Amino acid sequence: MPTVPVPLPDRAYDIHIGHGFLADAARFVRPVVRGNQLMLVFDENLAEPHARVLEQSLSADGFVVKTLQLPAGETTKSVQHLAAIWDAFAQNRFGRDCALVALGGGVIGDLAGFAAASFMRGVDFVQVPTSLLAMVDSSVGGKTGINHPLAKNLIGAFWQPKLVLADLDVLHTLPKGERISALAEIIKYGVIYDPQFFAWLEKNIAHLRELKDDAVSHAVQRSCEIKAEVVLQDERETGLRKILNFGHTLGHAIENSAGYGVVRHGEAISIGMVAESRLQVMRGVPGWTNHEHARLVELLEAARLPVRIPGEIKLGLDTLIAAARSDKKNRSGKIRYALPTALGKMEDVSASEEEAAQVLLEVGARQ
Amino acid sequence: MPTVPVPLPDRAYDIHIGHGFLADAARFVRPVVRGNQLMLVFDENLAEPHARVLEQSLSADGFVVKTLQLPAGETTKSVQHLAAIWDAFAQNRFGRDCALVALGGGVIGDLAGFAAASFMRGVDFVQVPTSLLAMVDSSVGGKTGINHPLAKNLIGAFWQPKLVLADLDVLHTLPKGERISALAEIIKYGVIYDPQFFAWLEKNIAHLRELKDDAVSHAVQRSCEIKAEVVLQDERETGLRKILNFGHTLGHAIENSAGYGVVRHGEAISIGMVAESRLQVMRGVPGWTNHEHARLVELLEAARLPVRIPGEIKLGLDTLIAAARSDKKNRSGKIRYALPTALGKMEDVSASEEEAAQVLLEVGARQ
Repeated sequence: MPTVPVPLPDRAYDIHIGHGFLADAARFVRPVVRGNQLMLVFDENLAEPHARVLEQSLSADGFVVKTLQLPAGETTKSVQHLAAIWDAFAQNRFGRDCALVALGGGVIGDLAGFAAASFMRGVDFVQVPTSLLAMVDSSVGGKTGINHPLAKNLIGAFWQPKLVLADLDVLHTLPKGERISALAEIIKYGVIYDPQFFAWLEKNIAHLRELKDDAVSHAVQRSCEIKAEVVLQDERETGLRKILNFGHTLGHAIENSAGYGVVRHGEAISIGMVAESRLQVMRGVPGWTNHEHARLVELLEAARLPVRIPGEIKLGLDTLIAAARSDKKNRSGKIRYALPTALGKMEDVSASEEEAAQVLLEVGARQ
Repeated sequence: MPTVPVPLPDRAYDIHIGHGFLADAARFVRPVVRGNQLMLVFDENLAEPHARVLEQSLSADGFVVKTLQLPAGETTKSVQHLAAIWDAFAQNRFGRDCALVALGGGVIGDLAGFAAASFMRGVDFVQVPTSLLAMVDSSVGGKTGINHPLAKNLIGAFWQPKLVLADLDVLHTLPKGERISALAEIIKYGVIYDPQFFAWLEKNIAHLRELKDDAVSHAVQRSCEIKAEVVLQDERETGLRKILNFGHTLGHAIENSAGYGVVRHGEAISIGMVAESRLQVMRGVPGWTNHEHARLVELLEAARLPVRIPGEIKLGLDTLIAAARSDKKNRSGKIRYALPTALGKMEDVSASEEEAAQVLLEVGARQ
């Protein structure tokens, strides 16, 4: 069973990757939390059997466990549901040494993490990510938050968990589309940091798609390791951490323009990576040519990820450019990207809106 | 013009104490903020002339300044007003390098500080405290937050300002009751940390009451220095910082039981200090006897602070004990306090509810 340590100064924690954690959670939770009160927040789709199994195993160990079931879906990342968690804490008279256990995907993890960050100015937080995307993306980095009607993830905090339990058994019970979507982020880690991992993915992508345990375990482990190395060098996203945004500048523009839920996050990032990779090829960088671009596109296709905006979704160029312009990563007039200069090497780039328009047209934006 | 440096690692900032800052704010703000967008949040009572003067001086320097006026009073520290600030940020399309400038007392500072902590996971924050209490209490420590219907300050974050401008001119325009209330916190700093400052207060309390500039300037400076020394050793309130809670365990119980606004915070803390001081005398500590207790009571009375629950406010003992029990500083069954073992020296104490009852009766609680 692999364990990835995330040795942040003062807030070091472990990510455990394995099987059967829900029925055995207390063994991991007990040593890392300060008190005996737990608030278990979970996605309604996980009520049976996962939340019940987890609640029973924690209660059996002597924890006082209160539960709060929340609706599935991106709209749950709202101030209303944030306030619902605060209310649950307050009504149960939980104290400063309580802990919040979040069972769910990225939505529940982000929302509950911010609730943990802000209740009494911060209580212990345990993450039990149930989607492959949450395992490889939300387990490391400490980004928590909610959406604002005008923009995703506009409100939040940096708040590190005390523990992450990535239970691979849970993955088998989730819809397949969610899994495939996570592959985009996993492939991203190869591009931005690790040519060997990229090559491993080229060989093992079919196993990953089929959720073979050994392949998934390695991919989750390596993704978390890479993200941890990056985040450790730049916890508050002032420099290096920006490389994690590869594919996200144009990917977010696609995701937001299509409207929440029309294009999945991972699918949008896949198309975004193709577009941004093309941008870099156009710029004429010696280590990122048509050859590297073709390898990336081939791997994304082998993962069954979209490499173009699906024909039935009509996204106008002006809308996409406006969305890219307002992205919070853009500080001046030009649009900013993190782009590969070679497999595993990245640079910060500003490029004109015309260049963005050209590559967006290539991936299927409408004139 | 005194400046108190608060040399937190990575987040050092200065507290400037002086005159005429509102008309000259850009000189201080410009060097400490990253960008050019400012959100000025202020208390409606400060609209004219203070907010206008501040807004004009910042705009004149080239800042893009948006303003948000909020109602005065404790009920403004709510999730609704927090969301109003988030909305103002989002609607103005403010970016990650914007800054929030809070002009007001503790309510505005706490609320706006949490909004700054949580917008885009944290933007620059400038505090312009306008009450004496905010100058000596909120300028240092980084505690921000809002109230929950079930408890004060239940939701929030630790978030440090980039700069604090304590403009003594503003104090002269505020109601006198607010000033007197702050004296309780100032006297607290003498008790918990600095016998010399306590002695200075005994000599100068009349000057402070009358808002003599030299006396106020010294009291604000020394209070901020003491709080900074304490906070620097314990930013997240795990140990030493608890000494700042002297008078607050029973003081909060009185404040909360009376209902928001019936007893002012400083008045409640004054009565709380008298009660907690008596508790320590009862415990028989050599350095804190009837002599020290009498000095404290005399100083509070000279400050025109209440040393008993006012006769017209009927607070039952059971209500008060229940409130003290549920205070967030109380982790186990007993009630916890920070109590002086001598002038300037403190200890952590747990005491029974019976002992609390006895001293609460002495300060006027009803059987």
